[in-house]
This record gives sequence, structure tokens and C-alpha cells, in this order.
Amino acid sequence: MSVLVVGTVALDTITTPLGRKEAILGGSAVFSALSASYFSPVNLVAVVGEDFPQDHISLLKKKKINLDGLDCVAGKTFCWTGVYGEDFSDPETLATELNVLVGFNPSLPESYRDSKYVFLANVDPDIQHKVLAQVKKPKLVVCDTMNFWIANKPESLLKLLKKVDVFLLNYSEARLLTRKNNLLDIGAQLMKMGPACVVIKKGEHGVVSFNSGKVFSLPACLINNLCDPTGAGDTFAGGFIGYLSSVAKWNELSFKKAIVHGSVMATFAVEDFSVTKLAAVNKALINRRVRELIKITKI
Amino acid sequence: MSVLVVGTVALDTITTPLGRKEAILGGSAVFSALSASYFSPVNLVAVVGEDFPQDHISLLKKKKINLDGLDCVAGKTFCWTGVYGEDFSDPETLATELNVLVGFNPSLPESYRDSKYVFLANVDPDIQHKVLAQVKKPKLVVCDTMNFWIANKPESLLKLLKKVDVFLLNYSEARLLTRKNNLLDIGAQLMKMGPACVVIKKGEHGVVSFNSGKVFSLPACLINNLCDPTGAGDTFAGGFIGYLSSVAKWNELSFKKAIVHGSVMATFAVEDFSVTKLAAVNKALINRRVRELIKITKI
Repeated sequence: MSVLVVGTVALDTITTPLGRKEAILGGSAVFSALSASYFSPVNLVAVVGEDFPQDHISLLKKKKINLDGLDCVAGKTFCWTGVYGEDFSDPETLATELNVLVGFNPSLPESYRDSKYVFLANVDPDIQHKVLAQVKKPKLVVCDTMNFWIANKPESLLKLLKKVDVFLLNYSEARLLTRKNNLLDIGAQLMKMGPACVVIKKGEHGVVSFNSGKVFSLPACLINNLCDPTGAGDTFAGGFIGYLSSVAKWNELSFKKAIVHGSVMATFAVEDFSVTKLAAVNKALINRRVRELIKITKI
Repeated sequence: MSVLVVGTVALDTITTPLGRKEAILGGSAVFSALSASYFSPVNLVAVVGEDFPQDHISLLKKKKINLDGLDCVAGKTFCWTGVYGEDFSDPETLATELNVLVGFNPSLPESYRDSKYVFLANVDPDIQHKVLAQVKKPKLVVCDTMNFWIANKPESLLKLLKKVDVFLLNYSEARLLTRKNNLLDIGAQLMKMGPACVVIKKGEHGVVSFNSGKVFSLPACLINNLCDPTGAGDTFAGGFIGYLSSVAKWNELSFKKAIVHGSVMATFAVEDFSVTKLAAVNKALINRRVRELIKITKI
């Protein structure tokens, strides 16, 4: 079943210990749509400016990502400029140029409105609301956010969470939103906000999730060629919802396996800049890494 | 089979967000011996001063910890004074008073020399060497260390590692010792130093281990009453070697289960100051938490 993804499309300028890249393809919708595309057809909702390269359009189309919902408007594409230090943790943001994101008012193509799997990737929660309101009868709604929206649009975000089945967020964002430090307290508090399931992403330390109160904790895959962590969380989310849409089954096991697939997809995103590696993998590589992750966690 | 433990016995003064406690029972040998005592008899090797309270001696004896190897000498007991911040991570050391540890030259009681399971808890590696040299035919030698010894006695430590089967250390210590950032690289580098097995403790993020190259990654138990993280690593180690000595079997599964048991024991250590909770648990509580940890990690 197809997955609807709304979020940002970006031309990022990123510096990591492995180098600096200018105006590379990024954004929450790009990483999550590409990741989900390995499991199901994807309908993308986003906006780009006139400067958005045709090559990127071709790449997304090649991955069978439906771009009927991609607005191309006058102005420049959204751009994030960030620098990662030696340990690759919390990047320093040098600039966030919203550009065409300002005033983005998505209207879903008719063909998108019957989508059953909806991923509201990190973007202004007002936009997430608008998109969700246009989907007729979603079966599973997953959403992500970031510290900026927690700090600046908490009311819109809290209203959105009441309509969401699965809420994905970083550990630091979860602490910020709940003002709690402990994972059990954080999980309980987040579930009280609406979502039946909460997935807390801890980067290299894995994932802790709460599915109707049941805890599942998964360590991260071990990789030795980390290049650029940008998009890891979005890619996780795309693999998570993509997997669920492909099995079209919602139970404890499919939820856990979706987390495994999300974790694996994220490793491909971080092994090169932009979507270079993520766009070049295949089902065999994905499945091999899924088996490896399950193996290293098995008692 | 009994476990020989050498390390420090301390009277610590500790401040955490939950309060301040003066001159409380601590030290690497105390936490690890108490932890191991739930699985096997323990032979303790350590030194205390004249100020060491008789109550603590009684507690250790009550736990069937053999104190024939506990020297009581003129002077004051080793004392660490530290403060934990709001997030309970890396404490600030206000004072380290070695006191009777200076000049400690352990001579093992004859009854200890046949020990098969040896835990060289965190203490001067010269002392770890001296103790190990007096054990006739150890079956399994496990050692721990800390950043202070990595920085100040690297040669002694590296020499020791050649005689060790399992090396346990913190993630930050592992990075310091190997000058690598990546867990796979760190594990490979540490195994080159001698130990067939390496266990990297990541606190609330669990454990990553390498058993002759095979990776096993275990998330931490989730607890919601963290009080004082002091001794968590030592308690992990005690549970780890204690479990292995009790099953007297060394294979991939027993290694993994030892890590599970170590992780569980550590949670008891951190739920109160000093050894208050750790000394008060029982096998039923331990086994329940073991089952819970296995459950939250199961796919």
C-alpha cells in the first residue's frame, strides 16, 4: 500500500569531519520518501524553488516516488547549513533559510487523498495538520518533529499528537517536550498526549519504543564508516512506515520489525553525504543488514 | 565456584540530585563482591583503614564474602568525593584520597590461590598484576579499569591485558585507550591488546560486547528511580563473573546471559545510595528483572 509523505525538500550545505558539501539534496521528506520507497510506492507532498535541480527530480522519479504533490514555486528551495564536530553529535546550525517553505499551503492531489499510510515528517506542525486533514481515512498516521517546533509551536504540535498513532522523536526532543529525564516517564507522558505508540530515537544507542505501554528496546546497528548523520531520523521513519505499509499488518511483531527496518535504513543514510548511499542500496543489502541486526541482539 | 575479587573498599562522599551522603560504603571491590555474592561465594582482596566501620564488615560477612584477604591497616580508608549533575552523567571528582591504598601490597591467603574465577576490579594495575600472579591456575580472568589508570599507568595496564580473558570498560575509557571513536574499531583494537572478549559498558544505553569477534549488543534495563550511579560498572562486573562462575560453563550463550545478569545487578546498585538496595535484593527479584530485560529486547 502506498505511503503519503509530507515534509521538507532541502538543498543543504553540510560539514562533517569527512568534508564539506554544498547545496546537496536533503530534507525530511526526501530521506523518508527514499527510505520508504524500498517497501512501497510513495506519494510525496513538499515544495521546492526554481533552483531545484532536475537531476534530483529524476532520481526521485526513478525510485517510483510520485511527485504530483511536489509544488515548484518561485524562489529558492529550503536550505539548512550545519557543521558536525569530531564526535558527529548535535550539529551546529549556521543557517536555516526557509525560503519557499514560508507560505507553503499544500493541496493534496486527488489520487493522494485515499492514502492509508501517512507520514508527517518533520516540518511546521501547521502544515502537518493541513495535510492530514485532507486524507480521507488513514489507517496509520506516523509523525516526527524537532526541537524548533516543540519550542515554537507547542500548541499546534500537541493538537496534532491527538490525531497521531505513532510519534517518533529524538531522545533530547522527548526530554524537551515532556520535561522529564527518564525514558519510562517520558514514554508514559508522550502516550498521554495521544499516540498509542512512541518511538524514541537515540542515534548510535538505538531505539526505545512504547507500543500501548509495552516496551521494546533495540540497539543500533554497528557501522564503521559514519560520514554524515543528517537525515538518519527521517530515514528511520521512512523505513518504519514503509515496512508497515508493505506487510499491511499491525501487531506487536510487525511494529518491532518496522523498528528494525527503520534502524537498518538509517545506517545507509549516514554512510555517505546526502542520499548517495541510501539511493543506491537494494532489497538484498537491506535484508542482509536486517539479519545482522537481529543476530547481534539475539540472546 | 568461588570468585576472587580484588579492588578498592571506600568510604565515599557523594552528591546526586537526590541528596548528599557522607562516608558511605563504596569501592570497586565492594560493589562487585556484593553483586557476585548472589551467584557464588566470594573471596575479597582489599585494604581498609582503622576508620572502617564494623557494621560494613558485618554486612559483607553476612553476604558470605570471605574477608581473609581484607587487610586492615593503620590510616584512613580510601575515599572518593564526587558530585553528579542533573543528568547523572560523568560526575565531578572533588577529591580522591588514596590513604591506605598507597603501599597496598596484597598477599593472598593460601585458600584464595586456587581460585578459578578472578575479577581484577578497578584499582592500580600494579596491584591487579600482583594479585593475578598469586593465583595458581585461573580458569577465567576478568578485569576492569578507569580513565585514571589508562592515562597514568598505560604500560602496566597493557601488560596486564595480555593475561586477561575478558576486559570490561566504559565507552569513554575505551575511546581513550584506543584513540578510536567507532565501536567496531574499538572492539577490534582492544582484542588485539590481548583479551578474547571485550565488554563496553554504555550506562543507560546498554552494553556492546565482542566475544572472539562476535558482536552482542544489549540495551539497558529501563528504571525510573535512578538515585546514585556510583558502582554501576563494578556491580555489572560482579554479576557478570558471578553468573559465569555459577554456571561454570563458557560458551556464547553463557557469555550473553552473564551480560544480562550483570546489567540487571547494576540496576539495583543505582536505585539507592551506596549498597543499600544491592545488599537487600534476592534471587527472585534478580530473576524477575532478568526476564523483563530479555522480554523488552526480544523481537
